Amino acid sequence: MEQRKLALIVGAGPGLGRSLARRFGAAEMNVALAARNLERLENLSVECAGIGRGAHAYRCDAACEEDVQALFRAVRGDYGCPDVVVYNAGAFLARGIVETSAEEFERCWRVGCLGGFLVGREAARAMLERVGQGGPGGTILFTGATASLRGSAGFHNLAVGKFGLRALAQSMARELQPKGIHVAHVLIDGRIRPSTVVEHTDANDGDALLDPDAIAEAYFQLYRQPRSAWTQELDLRPWVERF
Amino acid sequence: MEQRKLALIVGAGPGLGRSLARRFGAAEMNVALAARNLERLENLSVECAGIGRGAHAYRCDAACEEDVQALFRAVRGDYGCPDVVVYNAGAFLARGIVETSAEEFERCWRVGCLGGFLVGREAARAMLERVGQGGPGGTILFTGATASLRGSAGFHNLAVGKFGLRALAQSMARELQPKGIHVAHVLIDGRIRPSTVVEHTDANDGDALLDPDAIAEAYFQLYRQPRSAWTQELDLRPWVERF
Amino acid sequence: MEQRKLALIVGAGPGLGRSLARRFGAAEMNVALAARNLERLENLSVECAGIGRGAHAYRCDAACEEDVQALFRAVRGDYGCPDVVVYNAGAFLARGIVETSAEEFERCWRVGCLGGFLVGREAARAMLERVGQGGPGGTILFTGATASLRGSAGFHNLAVGKFGLRALAQSMARELQPKGIHVAHVLIDGRIRPSTVVEHTDANDGDALLDPDAIAEAYFQLYRQPRSAWTQELDLRPWVERF
Amino acid sequence: MEQRKLALIVGAGPGLGRSLARRFGAAEMNVALAARNLERLENLSVECAGIGRGAHAYRCDAACEEDVQALFRAVRGDYGCPDVVVYNAGAFLARGIVETSAEEFERCWRVGCLGGFLVGREAARAMLERVGQGGPGGTILFTGATASLRGSAGFHNLAVGKFGLRALAQSMARELQPKGIHVAHVLIDGRIRPSTVVEHTDANDGDALLDPDAIAEAYFQLYRQPRSAWTQELDLRPWVERF
Repeated sequence: MEQRKLALIVGAGPGLGRSLARRFGAAEMNVALAARNLERLENLSVECAGIGRGAHAYRCDAACEEDVQALFRAVRGDYGCPDVVVYNAGAFLARGIVETSAEEFERCWRVGCLGGFLVGREAARAMLERVGQGGPGGTILFTGATASLRGSAGFHNLAVGKFGLRALAQSMARELQPKGIHVAHVLIDGRIRPSTVVEHTDANDGDALLDPDAIAEAYFQLYRQPRSAWTQELDLRPWVERF
Repeated sequence: MEQRKLALIVGAGPGLGRSLARRFGAAEMNVALAARNLERLENLSVECAGIGRGAHAYRCDAACEEDVQALFRAVRGDYGCPDVVVYNAGAFLARGIVETSAEEFERCWRVGCLGGFLVGREAARAMLERVGQGGPGGTILFTGATASLRGSAGFHNLAVGKFGLRALAQSMARELQPKGIHVAHVLIDGRIRPSTVVEHTDANDGDALLDPDAIAEAYFQLYRQPRSAWTQELDLRPWVERF
Repeated sequence: MEQRKLALIVGAGPGLGRSLARRFGAAEMNVALAARNLERLENLSVECAGIGRGAHAYRCDAACEEDVQALFRAVRGDYGCPDVVVYNAGAFLARGIVETSAEEFERCWRVGCLGGFLVGREAARAMLERVGQGGPGGTILFTGATASLRGSAGFHNLAVGKFGLRALAQSMARELQPKGIHVAHVLIDGRIRPSTVVEHTDANDGDALLDPDAIAEAYFQLYRQPRSAWTQELDLRPWVERF
Repeated sequence: MEQRKLALIVGAGPGLGRSLARRFGAAEMNVALAARNLERLENLSVECAGIGRGAHAYRCDAACEEDVQALFRAVRGDYGCPDVVVYNAGAFLARGIVETSAEEFERCWRVGCLGGFLVGREAARAMLERVGQGGPGGTILFTGATASLRGSAGFHNLAVGKFGLRALAQSMARELQPKGIHVAHVLIDGRIRPSTVVEHTDANDGDALLDPDAIAEAYFQLYRQPRSAWTQELDLRPWVERF
């Protein structure tokens, strides 16, 4: 019988996705990773092999309803209901307003917001079903950005999806929290340190970018919050970041 | 030679659309009305016949790129560049998160937000072209709602589009205002009085709902603001409305 | 018998105060001006002599309860209940946090926020009394700033008072609007053009700063809003201002 | 030589204050408690005697500059520079606007906001001095509330101070974070469970109020954040709380 908890990370890449996989894995949880690019994911799975029970990779285009439903069927078949689901996908094309094609505008929204709805809805379905059977609820986490709160010039393609994702997170929190499902939104305000950067070469500069492990710790703490004190939104930025 | 100013109202219905048509018409402006339902529009045009030069009706599905581009070609051919463009379309289906189909979620966003992008972009193209020829800029106004600031339980279909439209308005204001185009967002917080309600039957109750003529006056004042003091966002609600 | 409407402007100086006096005076309203510096005020009154019925000057330290109560006694004795009251006083000392004395911190708050409470409360008392006698309500307007929404480095002395004034405006609106008193807050985001600047020397630069007459027009429009569609908050900034 | 870290909690009472003392004490930190009521504090110290090295009690009226400066002299003499300082004091009188005396309005602000400035400034002075000597920075945490974001009818006495405290926290974060001092603001949205309530009498109702231990855990996690990913603001509310 499966007793381990399960973390499902959608939009898993070599940055935050990898750190999330390692953090949840370090807590002896099963980890399921989903992304459009299966090759990158498999490298990630291999890297996670030594942590906890390793991570399992699933290919999924989060903006495609069939893909997301197939993902949840596969994950639930393999592990059961996820205990925490992270939506971490995004897309962005910097453009002036008159240079933006309708296709670009829509594509950014589909990855940034529609995918969040599809993943959040399937997560809610699985978790509500488990609650209905007397089981525990779960946690759904969405990754926001500076553009979740502010539409800057040239950033409409990002901001429209990120504002929408924040609206979704709020609506889901207000609907689902009284049913036992925690929904939180994390505003990542700054650039995440690429994995290629050598860490801490200089005491002052080493943490001028967001350390993905530090972000993952914040997500893990959200997952661990008891329901008597749930956070709906928090921001994260490096100490030197202007805001 | 055409000297009159032009107001283009997209998403014109018997409520706010009619009041906007009458208010801009009363200022001796030409008024172009666009909506999906041409029949309702034509009644509206007839009603506006005695105001200013009357109003011209155009059929347009604001969520359809071809329709919006055809609308602007027709309006510009008939009248020239609009001086003020109002985006007033919206769609909403109250639903629990797990009962929402991907089609419903997407359709509400297409009317609530994608249409605002398509109309706003074509308005910006026309206005920037005129500015490039040494002419005046223009005003672009978006209609928001309570759900522009708050994602309530069961309202994700509305809030995702309205948050997105607000992001768009902010990004467009920051990009376009220094080029001479005023972009403002109006938060309508409350229910608009249906035209079927007899006005002021009771001194205290007659204005418990938003009077569409009062809203239209606020839009008109935004249009008249000199560029030394532009408003990006304001709210409107009845005196008795809780907020 | 007095039939004219009355505007009372507290914190009236040569910038916005003058423009407000002229705008309300142009609408055939009586205008009462109050400020700490009576000499500046009297020059202002003289200047307003040709507008409407002129403006009457009152000395008042808005941060002092006795002064504010004496002001309202005098104004009500001279004219009756004010129809619109504007609170426009403010104080600011740019400081690092550890260089700020408790006296400086408190003084800025007393002018920026406590004065707003004292003036707002006396305005509410006068207006509620009139409503209780079957008369009309009134309008109370507070002047905010960029610092009403954002605490920037070195700006705590300003932001603490301006955030507090915004809290006051919201609480008063929610309490008093259902009783017929409109309470609005205006976010002035940018520098107001000093009266010493020659206007419009250059078509592009003349309105790069906020024109106080344009701000005064916005205040006047708020005062004129019918209660079916009241604005609680709007922002004003020049077209070229970054935000 | 003193190696232990020090937590200073100002506004420590039997609710959150006690839980904070226990949480920091459980991390082997020294804990200094300050409040106006020394008797309550001493009971708290006795209760904490078995945790870590116990907690030391200091009498301090946080709204009084001399008291706050004496507190920091005493604490720094006893333990050295604090590593984390929590400002947790507040005061509130529900009142209609015209029933509020100037004394009440001011008193609530002095406890809710001025005290936060006095404590925050002394904390910054101590921490910046240590940074200047090559030592580590520190963490300053402010306790906010629902009224930090919303001025409700009858709540101006609370909201003015809480909005102001939030402005202060933002300004301090923007000024001090690049100097190595983390400043965060916690929005506690709901009622904290009184210590007299028997815990978890019912599986569903036991956590309908905020558990002060759960809040204290969130404060502790903020203190532990590495500077590459600092949170400036988060909210906390029970799962069943409407918001």
